[in-house]
Amino acid sequence: MNAPANTHHLLPAIAQRDVPQALIDALKARFAERCSTALVVREQHGRDESSFDAPPPAAVVFAENTAEVAEAVALAAQHKVPVIPFGVGSSLEGHLLAVQGGISIDLGRMNKVLSVNAEDLTVTVQPGVTRKQLNEEIKSTGLFFPIDPGADATIGGMSATRASGTNAVRYGTMRENVLGLEVVTASGQVIRTGTRAKKSSAGYDLTRLMVGSEGTLGVITEVTLRIYPLPEAVSAAVCSFPSIEAAVRTTIQVIQMGIPIARVELIDHNTVRMVNKHSKLSLREEAMLLMEFHGSPTGVQEQAEMVQEIASEFGGNAFEWASTPEERTRLWTARHNAYFAAVQSKPGCKVISTDTCVPISRLADCLLDSVAEADASGIPYFLVGHVGDGNFHFGYLLDPDKPEERVAAEQLNHQLVSRALKLGGTCTGEHGVGLHKMDFLVTEAGDGAVDMMRTIKRALDPDNIMNPGKIFAL
Amino acid sequence: MNAPANTHHLLPAIAQRDVPQALIDALKARFAERCSTALVVREQHGRDESSFDAPPPAAVVFAENTAEVAEAVALAAQHKVPVIPFGVGSSLEGHLLAVQGGISIDLGRMNKVLSVNAEDLTVTVQPGVTRKQLNEEIKSTGLFFPIDPGADATIGGMSATRASGTNAVRYGTMRENVLGLEVVTASGQVIRTGTRAKKSSAGYDLTRLMVGSEGTLGVITEVTLRIYPLPEAVSAAVCSFPSIEAAVRTTIQVIQMGIPIARVELIDHNTVRMVNKHSKLSLREEAMLLMEFHGSPTGVQEQAEMVQEIASEFGGNAFEWASTPEERTRLWTARHNAYFAAVQSKPGCKVISTDTCVPISRLADCLLDSVAEADASGIPYFLVGHVGDGNFHFGYLLDPDKPEERVAAEQLNHQLVSRALKLGGTCTGEHGVGLHKMDFLVTEAGDGAVDMMRTIKRALDPDNIMNPGKIFAL
Repeated sequence: MNAPANTHHLLPAIAQRDVPQALIDALKARFAERCSTALVVREQHGRDESSFDAPPPAAVVFAENTAEVAEAVALAAQHKVPVIPFGVGSSLEGHLLAVQGGISIDLGRMNKVLSVNAEDLTVTVQPGVTRKQLNEEIKSTGLFFPIDPGADATIGGMSATRASGTNAVRYGTMRENVLGLEVVTASGQVIRTGTRAKKSSAGYDLTRLMVGSEGTLGVITEVTLRIYPLPEAVSAAVCSFPSIEAAVRTTIQVIQMGIPIARVELIDHNTVRMVNKHSKLSLREEAMLLMEFHGSPTGVQEQAEMVQEIASEFGGNAFEWASTPEERTRLWTARHNAYFAAVQSKPGCKVISTDTCVPISRLADCLLDSVAEADASGIPYFLVGHVGDGNFHFGYLLDPDKPEERVAAEQLNHQLVSRALKLGGTCTGEHGVGLHKMDFLVTEAGDGAVDMMRTIKRALDPDNIMNPGKIFAL
Repeated sequence: MNAPANTHHLLPAIAQRDVPQALIDALKARFAERCSTALVVREQHGRDESSFDAPPPAAVVFAENTAEVAEAVALAAQHKVPVIPFGVGSSLEGHLLAVQGGISIDLGRMNKVLSVNAEDLTVTVQPGVTRKQLNEEIKSTGLFFPIDPGADATIGGMSATRASGTNAVRYGTMRENVLGLEVVTASGQVIRTGTRAKKSSAGYDLTRLMVGSEGTLGVITEVTLRIYPLPEAVSAAVCSFPSIEAAVRTTIQVIQMGIPIARVELIDHNTVRMVNKHSKLSLREEAMLLMEFHGSPTGVQEQAEMVQEIASEFGGNAFEWASTPEERTRLWTARHNAYFAAVQSKPGCKVISTDTCVPISRLADCLLDSVAEADASGIPYFLVGHVGDGNFHFGYLLDPDKPEERVAAEQLNHQLVSRALKLGGTCTGEHGVGLHKMDFLVTEAGDGAVDMMRTIKRALDPDNIMNPGKIFAL
């Protein structure tokens, strides 16, 4: 084995595969200055928001269209060299790391909204379009794309990891909102999956197979998405609770009653403190739900009244309204900055983020025991959750100079995942498996199902060049 | 080639594969009287609601649990003999026909609702549970399973064909509503896909790969579904229109405005006449929309008022309400009986049913031109549609003694599918590909995508024993 010296000790030691100079020469001949081997460029494409390190890729190709992606992949395939698609680098699970070496294909320049079909509520985009850019570009149509993982990720990356985030409780995840794809396969062939029809029974659901495959089956080069009319009325509210449990039990009841809430986000009191400091807010430093309601004016009012009533049964107080769009934006920006607020609270720290998701009825069981464990460990953490979906994240804030903290955090994560799986849940609600959850995936899905995934991978990518070393070992 | 004499001339002639006596003996030894070789039983399992004929399977195994399915598949695998799962036989596309010979596994005795998780809005069932049975069994919980393809199909069959029907416009299809599966693979191994969590990014989406795979990748032996709270208020309405176009344009506007209508079904004037006769109703014999609204009392009223206003803009009249549950049931029963009403209108006829689905904005273009062509052909037909999804069905009523009618109907279907594909649609919204749409699938998805499906099929079922000869030729 040939594990590079600077790879973190928890990364499985995997042999770096050879990247022949002939491939680099061929890429440079084809892409000229759009194929870079500069260390700074390679390093920027060889890391993400995970806490892992790996050697950077041998080269980065900046592709400008599908044909170029296909050419780059075909060249890599000739040399059996790994290919790693790159969006903006916001993965939390090491998806972008060149753990087996290879080349990175940067899709950031493929950032055009190709067509907006307002009358059908669909849009077709290149993979490098980010979610904020998309919403900016379609704003004038009165439509929006709701999936919002926090980071301003690319649509290609969000498709590849089956992302979701706030709003998913009402609008679903990338699984529900990707209608069709264009994909460059491992041999450099271009295929299309799906149509613009709202439903279809035409053969295997290749769209859904590609969504969430984390770059291991092909490079996504075009995405057709569902979009939605901007709701006639939107209102947001903040409600503080005497305990995390009260906030969680409120959420459970809201969901079980079928109230079509658009967003319901939990933030624990520690994290509120970090957010207040980072975003200069003065939110009550208690467990809190951030909520948003979408619909007709009467519908929104109906929903909000029902939720307020439930919240007050659980001791919720200070049901405060953010009535202007500016206030709402400030609130959601603060929520999205929770991660950065937390990181800032412990300068130089590394974050390990958990991502379990459980059936809503088991949310309190899963979350509260894990809070107790995290508190007992003494490791600082933040806790936020898309609790309407049963999904939440602990972010353990680790001192990189104290390896024992990482060990302890991994232990906490292990206990949390075991608990979630016992309760009928999943080890990853939205971040993907990447490098970090490969063992958990086997526990969750079973050897048989993971073997089926491997069989599909081997059949579609016999030389294992598409983002190898992610999801499962081959 | 060895095409049996009674196979319809339009079925591709495929060699029947050998079913060795040793397999029949082994199945009889294992399953005793639950393995039948009686001709009447085999014939009943060798046909469906399609217009095709094929020789019956060599034997029928009545499985009572997953282990038995696995044993039967493992035995068949030893002998490389085809296995065809059977629910109630309501397929419209020849899915159940033993076109290459083999054995049928009847799952009708696996008809238990295994668990109802009312608090999480999920239910886990065996594959032989029918949708009506499921709704009957969960009625007392105040929850329901909305997917309604008309026929009282099994949940296993509906999963295998990615079925939908009325209600899909609001609640989605089997794609959106199957959370997890238990599947017996081609080698007789039992795997599980998905969890009860509402969302997950844990590896390849095997659930969605199996949903719609038409029995070609495995036998579904357990299904976990989303269920929904019975709406607080339901109201149904009938509205007649001066033309199909007026009804369609009303539908398009309702959908484009984002009104969350639960059902919106088109029936053309001919079909209303057939339905009136069959179901002893006195609906106005004009193009008609049958609609249903779900929600809070004020929400339902809001929706209905908006729709009524749109309908009257397009000349809709006689917006009649079915306010009692009995009236509603009578209306929907009549709608579901449209197929039988049509068949009865031409005794002895065979039906070829189309199943195109297009983006909603193209619905009028697609439908009206096809109506003109069908009218010009002189072949009697019925026309019904889940128009809120852009999905509709012509049923051409053919005299089996007039082969020229079949040729003409196939020509009409061909023109319709070509038109739908040009408009960004699909050849099959909900029935599946089966035997009848294999060529259309290639036109729709392209050689590359169909080759990817074949590659997956070959990898997961190397001896091609799982319902072979469906979706694509191998």
